[in-house]
Amino acid sequence: MVVRSTIMDTNSFRPEHASELDEATRQLTAKRERLLGESYRLFYRRPVHLVKGLGQYLWDANGDKYLDVYNNVASIGHCHPAVIAAVNEQMQSLNTHTRYLHERILSYSEELLETMPSEINKAMYMCTGSEANDLAMRIAHAYSGGTGIIVSQEAYHGTSALTSGASPALGSGQPLSPNTGLLASPDHYRLAGQDVGVWLADRMQEKIDEMTTNGIQFAGFMADSIFSSDGVLPGNAGFLKPAIDVVHKNGGIFIADEVQPGFARTGEAFWGFARHGVIPDVVTSGKPMGNGIPVSGLFAKQEVLAAFSDQIPYFNTFGGNPVAMAAAQAVLNVIKEEGLQAHSAQVGQQLLNELKGLQEKYDCVGDVRGAGLFIGFELVSDKESKTPNKALALDLIEKLRERKVLTSVAGPHGNVLKLRPPLAFQAHDIDWLVGALDDALHMIL
Amino acid sequence: MVVRSTIMDTNSFRPEHASELDEATRQLTAKRERLLGESYRLFYRRPVHLVKGLGQYLWDANGDKYLDVYNNVASIGHCHPAVIAAVNEQMQSLNTHTRYLHERILSYSEELLETMPSEINKAMYMCTGSEANDLAMRIAHAYSGGTGIIVSQEAYHGTSALTSGASPALGSGQPLSPNTGLLASPDHYRLAGQDVGVWLADRMQEKIDEMTTNGIQFAGFMADSIFSSDGVLPGNAGFLKPAIDVVHKNGGIFIADEVQPGFARTGEAFWGFARHGVIPDVVTSGKPMGNGIPVSGLFAKQEVLAAFSDQIPYFNTFGGNPVAMAAAQAVLNVIKEEGLQAHSAQVGQQLLNELKGLQEKYDCVGDVRGAGLFIGFELVSDKESKTPNKALALDLIEKLRERKVLTSVAGPHGNVLKLRPPLAFQAHDIDWLVGALDDALHMIL
Repeated sequence: MVVRSTIMDTNSFRPEHASELDEATRQLTAKRERLLGESYRLFYRRPVHLVKGLGQYLWDANGDKYLDVYNNVASIGHCHPAVIAAVNEQMQSLNTHTRYLHERILSYSEELLETMPSEINKAMYMCTGSEANDLAMRIAHAYSGGTGIIVSQEAYHGTSALTSGASPALGSGQPLSPNTGLLASPDHYRLAGQDVGVWLADRMQEKIDEMTTNGIQFAGFMADSIFSSDGVLPGNAGFLKPAIDVVHKNGGIFIADEVQPGFARTGEAFWGFARHGVIPDVVTSGKPMGNGIPVSGLFAKQEVLAAFSDQIPYFNTFGGNPVAMAAAQAVLNVIKEEGLQAHSAQVGQQLLNELKGLQEKYDCVGDVRGAGLFIGFELVSDKESKTPNKALALDLIEKLRERKVLTSVAGPHGNVLKLRPPLAFQAHDIDWLVGALDDALHMIL
Repeated sequence: MVVRSTIMDTNSFRPEHASELDEATRQLTAKRERLLGESYRLFYRRPVHLVKGLGQYLWDANGDKYLDVYNNVASIGHCHPAVIAAVNEQMQSLNTHTRYLHERILSYSEELLETMPSEINKAMYMCTGSEANDLAMRIAHAYSGGTGIIVSQEAYHGTSALTSGASPALGSGQPLSPNTGLLASPDHYRLAGQDVGVWLADRMQEKIDEMTTNGIQFAGFMADSIFSSDGVLPGNAGFLKPAIDVVHKNGGIFIADEVQPGFARTGEAFWGFARHGVIPDVVTSGKPMGNGIPVSGLFAKQEVLAAFSDQIPYFNTFGGNPVAMAAAQAVLNVIKEEGLQAHSAQVGQQLLNELKGLQEKYDCVGDVRGAGLFIGFELVSDKESKTPNKALALDLIEKLRERKVLTSVAGPHGNVLKLRPPLAFQAHDIDWLVGALDDALHMIL
């Protein structure tokens, strides 16, 4: 049995670290412990107290500057002036809900749907990726008549009851729904030499058959196409297609969870699914959509969505409100105006090349893989065994923190550095990151 | 069997109304139909195209001014400068998440928890009321070990899969969860002469016993203490207490859903539950918390929350982020600085008195009831039969819309006008509202 790392036991502050903290930080952590629910976790043994952000940089209360290589919420850069201005302007005129007419939701929907295959022609808005995925799963149920949802082995799809039951990354404390099927991760690194596309399609058919045997009707497959919580597994473009064909052949729908790869992040395409040449039935988005203003969306084929909408009312009070749409529109404008998709492809490739230098240099750097500015940096005991080295990964992110580089870990073993900076990350930032990695690895080893 | 009105078949625009519209409005409704999911519903046969808001007023694209007697999201008034400034200021410096230290979430939590009984000492943040209630139900499950949740007969608690299954107001298209028990609405108007507190406590015990008989372990009772979707049933302060005592005696928890009555709305208390002298185990909030910036919260007794938090990770990406907290803090400041709770009590009472004048004048106005600026105005065939008159209520809100007064309907029969203006509503607005109501009733009858 694989012992899974969870969000609980990886990169997080624990009370026993308190003695290492300076007085101001200790007071803040103590106040958090007193006031906030115990679910709240802080990153790092020495938590970071941030007070300012701009572009790809963050500053702490001491004035120290950090390079942000983790946060995709501030997708186009922290405190981007275009989003600040758009939100401020809309807040000054109106912020109500979608039961009155407003133009912003329509112009944004029109423009965003144009980035998708024409089959996907309906938009809905919520506030979080969890809400979008919760609704997507209900749509899958309504459309297929089934309840069985397949997700990847280490998927994370949200915090609601329904999405948590389809999020094995939450660990064994959170029981999976009996209607959830787990598809093996497309771990190209360890499946080297195999045609992962064919392999994954075979696993998909097995899982669907298993569900059928268990009396559960298959409803659909939900996946983040970059498999972020499985350890950042971009794979080669197109490898997902055979598996999606299997999904459709078996009457299920494909829900592309674009909370991670969407909005130009992968460089190769505006959406993660587009890298694979597949047409989802439902697309969900969240984190990077409003640069920190809570907004999420669900985009679907009309006939798929109708199976739900014809029966069940759905109204999300804040979803698609004028201020949320103003933020989302500003983000979309900036991605286009600043050419961030091409930028992500180019700088991402440059960074990847530099990181591959470290891979050659260190036996413990087993694999470096990425699409655009979404890169996994996998630490192992040695290149031969490929044994995941979680302790090294955790040590490394603490050492990076000391060198003012912020990132975190991912994957079933918590041994993969998730390098996912704001798209404002520039070529001239590469030295800081790669230098810090090199230095830290050199020091640890 | 009671045929329930649902959100689908009450105050909403339908395509067959399109011919009555001016060209600009028709274009917008057509564009919505083309681009947005069919779940989207517009208020009114002639939808309102809003472009501007300030305080208790809204303006449409033609420049016509409306009195807002419906929207509690813009709780302290549309486009309140304090919220605009706080959000703008915070957006200029930083907007990340709660895995880094930040002071705003702590200072806000400290101040907000002070408005609650000392037993409620832990805060968590999400983005919507649905997310807060979804988590609250999961906490009830974890703490009690049971799954049975009792809600009121016409309750609405959210859009997620779990909360929708506990929201009979969504109508028969949305199946209730088999773990949901329905408690009869405390309809003081039709229970006249009875001690509703004792009556409700008896119904509660019956429902819990029924659950037990059905093999479902009771987990808790979730209620909006003003019973908004049951038709706005504030009742007399304190009537809920005996029912909550029954909940606790049977090992369940009480979840106070404060999305409707919270944040000074009822005038008599800052929180709806406080009107009843009860101590909830979990409190949820949403709509009025950030004046339109998506933010919600869950506040709980430490030992109740711990049953969940000890086992299950929970992280809400946007929840409690610095900008959401800045908006929430500004709302709280304004409620205190502008004395909005006392204001709500005073102006609400004045408005109630004026509306009672209409009740005396018209046989079709069966009941007028309220707490602060949350008032139900119930239309019936006649005072003797108390038969709900939905057609009249729907007609009336359309007539009010013509007189530039915005409101909508509530209740199982859709015959109760829900009068719930921003707390910026002033004594001098009463004439507009009451005059329009008088005029419209006079015209219809």
